[in-house]
Amino acid sequence: MSSSQPLRGVVPPVCTPLDAAGEIDTASIARHVEHLVGGGVHGLFALGSSSEVAFLTDRQRSVALETVVEAVAGRVPVLAGVIDMTTPRVLDHADAALKAGADALVATAPFYARTHPREIARHFRTLRARAGLPLYAYDLPVSVHSKLSATLVRELAEDGTLAGLKDSSGDEGGLRRLLVELGGRHGRADGPAPSFSVLTGSELTVDAALLAGADGVVPGLGNVDPAGYVRLYDAVRGGDLDGAVGEQERLVELFGMVDAGPESEMGRNSSAIGAFKHALRLLGIFTHGTTAEPQVQLGDAAVAHVEERLRGAGLLPVR
Amino acid sequence: MSSSQPLRGVVPPVCTPLDAAGEIDTASIARHVEHLVGGGVHGLFALGSSSEVAFLTDRQRSVALETVVEAVAGRVPVLAGVIDMTTPRVLDHADAALKAGADALVATAPFYARTHPREIARHFRTLRARAGLPLYAYDLPVSVHSKLSATLVRELAEDGTLAGLKDSSGDEGGLRRLLVELGGRHGRADGPAPSFSVLTGSELTVDAALLAGADGVVPGLGNVDPAGYVRLYDAVRGGDLDGAVGEQERLVELFGMVDAGPESEMGRNSSAIGAFKHALRLLGIFTHGTTAEPQVQLGDAAVAHVEERLRGAGLLPVR
Amino acid sequence: MSSSQPLRGVVPPVCTPLDAAGEIDTASIARHVEHLVGGGVHGLFALGSSSEVAFLTDRQRSVALETVVEAVAGRVPVLAGVIDMTTPRVLDHADAALKAGADALVATAPFYARTHPREIARHFRTLRARAGLPLYAYDLPVSVHSKLSATLVRELAEDGTLAGLKDSSGDEGGLRRLLVELGGRHGRADGPAPSFSVLTGSELTVDAALLAGADGVVPGLGNVDPAGYVRLYDAVRGGDLDGAVGEQERLVELFGMVDAGPESEMGRNSSAIGAFKHALRLLGIFTHGTTAEPQVQLGDAAVAHVEERLRGAGLLPVR
Amino acid sequence: MSSSQPLRGVVPPVCTPLDAAGEIDTASIARHVEHLVGGGVHGLFALGSSSEVAFLTDRQRSVALETVVEAVAGRVPVLAGVIDMTTPRVLDHADAALKAGADALVATAPFYARTHPREIARHFRTLRARAGLPLYAYDLPVSVHSKLSATLVRELAEDGTLAGLKDSSGDEGGLRRLLVELGGRHGRADGPAPSFSVLTGSELTVDAALLAGADGVVPGLGNVDPAGYVRLYDAVRGGDLDGAVGEQERLVELFGMVDAGPESEMGRNSSAIGAFKHALRLLGIFTHGTTAEPQVQLGDAAVAHVEERLRGAGLLPVR
Repeated sequence: MSSSQPLRGVVPPVCTPLDAAGEIDTASIARHVEHLVGGGVHGLFALGSSSEVAFLTDRQRSVALETVVEAVAGRVPVLAGVIDMTTPRVLDHADAALKAGADALVATAPFYARTHPREIARHFRTLRARAGLPLYAYDLPVSVHSKLSATLVRELAEDGTLAGLKDSSGDEGGLRRLLVELGGRHGRADGPAPSFSVLTGSELTVDAALLAGADGVVPGLGNVDPAGYVRLYDAVRGGDLDGAVGEQERLVELFGMVDAGPESEMGRNSSAIGAFKHALRLLGIFTHGTTAEPQVQLGDAAVAHVEERLRGAGLLPVR
Repeated sequence: MSSSQPLRGVVPPVCTPLDAAGEIDTASIARHVEHLVGGGVHGLFALGSSSEVAFLTDRQRSVALETVVEAVAGRVPVLAGVIDMTTPRVLDHADAALKAGADALVATAPFYARTHPREIARHFRTLRARAGLPLYAYDLPVSVHSKLSATLVRELAEDGTLAGLKDSSGDEGGLRRLLVELGGRHGRADGPAPSFSVLTGSELTVDAALLAGADGVVPGLGNVDPAGYVRLYDAVRGGDLDGAVGEQERLVELFGMVDAGPESEMGRNSSAIGAFKHALRLLGIFTHGTTAEPQVQLGDAAVAHVEERLRGAGLLPVR
Repeated sequence: MSSSQPLRGVVPPVCTPLDAAGEIDTASIARHVEHLVGGGVHGLFALGSSSEVAFLTDRQRSVALETVVEAVAGRVPVLAGVIDMTTPRVLDHADAALKAGADALVATAPFYARTHPREIARHFRTLRARAGLPLYAYDLPVSVHSKLSATLVRELAEDGTLAGLKDSSGDEGGLRRLLVELGGRHGRADGPAPSFSVLTGSELTVDAALLAGADGVVPGLGNVDPAGYVRLYDAVRGGDLDGAVGEQERLVELFGMVDAGPESEMGRNSSAIGAFKHALRLLGIFTHGTTAEPQVQLGDAAVAHVEERLRGAGLLPVR
Repeated sequence: MSSSQPLRGVVPPVCTPLDAAGEIDTASIARHVEHLVGGGVHGLFALGSSSEVAFLTDRQRSVALETVVEAVAGRVPVLAGVIDMTTPRVLDHADAALKAGADALVATAPFYARTHPREIARHFRTLRARAGLPLYAYDLPVSVHSKLSATLVRELAEDGTLAGLKDSSGDEGGLRRLLVELGGRHGRADGPAPSFSVLTGSELTVDAALLAGADGVVPGLGNVDPAGYVRLYDAVRGGDLDGAVGEQERLVELFGMVDAGPESEMGRNSSAIGAFKHALRLLGIFTHGTTAEPQVQLGDAAVAHVEERLRGAGLLPVR
């Protein structure tokens, strides 16, 4: 992948299997990469939020990324999250990602310390200047507590700082405005490949985002059902909107697995990631459903809920 | 309109024209109702946020609502916002709305005082029991600082408390989950009229919401271009997705008028509502573009920006 | 009270007793005014947040305010909350307060619609110009979701718009900066009466606020124990810091009554106000402990918790 | 320092001097440690928010901490921040801090990923179990976007997980409740040394916090004027409240330097930290006033504002 060939399609954020001791389970990663690439995905996003990147030590991040890159063996591009608080720390992760063989970097705005929009712009520009890989901005207000404005994204797209955007802001109206400003759907479908790739992280409205001109999707749920998201993508591209909506609705029902953990006992993150990981265990891909410390683990009732959703979506045989 | 005939289609929140002294301009209201009904809309929402309901005295609310009802003369249903902090105050507005001849009520969750989900449920149930009109819940976290959960909405739909939902939360993923839980798109399109009406307030992604099974839209921008939203609605209903997307993109560009006021000088609300009102003035419908106190008025440059967007969208002749 | 005699001392926000049907219990109000004035307070704040102003209809607001004014009979000044979303609606309440005989008005920044700092300034200036009473700004971000900046407060103090500030923002550092900018503690204690009155709503750190130069306090808990807050105020004024801290600590323990209601079942507001009202019932002042709709009522265990705190603070005999 | 001798007094979070290239300036650190210890402080907090810990690479964190520990040479205890997103990453920093010779660790709640209170408790308990040093909880909602509840802090104090709390939440009422629950002021002053140390980060209300029974303060501004905070601490301990208030007011005026940078051009963090660092440069302690990437640097006008505040507070001769 080069910066002149922006990414299109389904690019799941790769869940990171752990063993019972909390260490990276590289054998499960290798199986998972086959599951995803075999499902027809167009790229992989390693070390994203769904990869529990925030919970992995630097050593674990390297092991996870290297294992993904090796298993992929060039079949699809691998984007690497370089998630940390500020520019100097992100640059260290960028060095590691380059060494591990990643094809592009994905960085959020700074977090922990409050930063000004001018400082956020400076952050991305410094990353682009010093790191030797194409750069995607990751708009994730729920984690970093600031929103990338459309004005800033356009500026950084136009001056070549960014190769693309992963929009997990949930602001679909704002995304629509950005897409129209970038040229609208018709220009994108009929014209040459876009020079700037817009990927949505809103996995429940992918039909809508693609219809509106987004180039692709980064669905956490795509870990569990990559082929489903690929069918959805292909249906929209092929003009079969009815098929796309039906597929999306099936995936919305499947997504209900994230409610597995009771809210009184665990966080939304551990419930959702735990559900994905146990689903992958039930599908025979992961050895364990363990999430990283300090997350609470799913109990038996929660795992039964996950299993039920898998059966409902046709991913496990109905008993 | 009765509760057995839920609302479908385009239901603009009616802007409230004011004269230079800040009083209700009833002649402009009458012209505006013709503009909207003539544009083919399926209902009107008076005293909503875009009506500046928060800025109108009780007397002004009554004048505005009565004028709308009289001008509509039964051609389409009129929903009336009963926006206030808590149940007792909302009930007073409900009495006024009933007297003014509204067909249904639209109420938010309580605000100002922090309330528990159990108290929010109690709020809607008490309103339904004591007010003599069908009740729509208005989910508007940006104003009331709480979000109606899908669980609560379903509960209140199933027990008959609510006739429908106006979702202005911006949470399109949550809306999609709700629509799937309520039966999904296919069930809604082929089956009998829904017993619960889901209207989106997300005016920039209406094609997507209708595709996902929403029954209609409450677009602030529909004040300016009601016929555009009706074309968009008809296109989706008629299966012309390409037409719908094109119409939506034109409306997204038109929507750019809300950025008229400089952020350093005025709020987002006064900029957006001021833009709609000046657009209606430029279209010959409103006599003034005045917004209510304490809002800052649009300056000349801002009004020029509004005019440019009207020309760009084909609503004024290009010079 | 005139604007040349700013308020100093303990000014409780008067709880509004309701009967079982949710109507104003004027007999209990009269008893409560005696309890407060007899406790030595320096003023009363009617129709504040602790008065459940957000839950009272306009008619009920008038009854409550008129009853307070009549019962006080000029012994101390009565401030009246004019709590509503925007300038035109607040002006209606200001008219009612003037007619009811209030001595000053207390207004928040606009809420529900998002406003710009320039619009907030315009709001207070318009209120001051059109309402015939001295005006206090009520800084209450938890309800109105914006914070009055120190710069704005100083501007409005210096141009005579505001007679004072009730600071319930919880930002004690910001309050300290404001007090230093207004002249600091020493200037205030030794010099002439201040032309601008700073009252804190932070009822758990009154000793600190008075030490820092605040002129007084508006304590919700002062409904239950007005004499305690007066002792605390007098102790600081008399230089008995040890006595003040001890009194404050006793009141902090008493304040624990607000945790009465279980968080899983009711909101913080209904728990706190319910606790104050049941405490007043247990003290023989209120006939009922009822809170307004849609609030959940305290259960028996919660009321027992309130009673225990009253005994712990010496307000009821220990059994 | 052992866990049986909790910390009391003034414990500044040590600013980290950088050279023009953004590298750690160890010579300036050594001078700064003399400035602080010579000012009479009772401990140092290295790698805190004011140290720009979020902006330092792991290598830089080690250099900074080792330089502080070496320069202190055992004269006062050195607390080390171990600021990172989750337990596994924090444990890596704890190992580094132990090797560098720190006396205790300071950790926030997890951030970036949303965590449940049970997971936050698990985080601190795991840190205590696996790291070989006493542990302080750092309550900093502005950075980590969750608040440590008083219930949780008490639980973790009582079971020996925590040696203390650094409260930078700004919730002075909550702190007061916690202090009363922990025994109140009188018990603390007259009794044996506390087994749990409560330090406030609210540098503008230190007189109040100490009066309420806090054991000490972690003032960012203490970098600039350590002796001032020590005088303030000694005044409260010695019963000279007037002296304490006067000293605090002088420090509040000095604190005005944090407004140096214009809000339209830089963030609050870079303005405040930049002001402290330029103040230290003007005082001859730091060689440069540089802040780390991607922060905007203070301009000449801003530096002049800092200098003026230093003169106003008597730290530089008035010209």
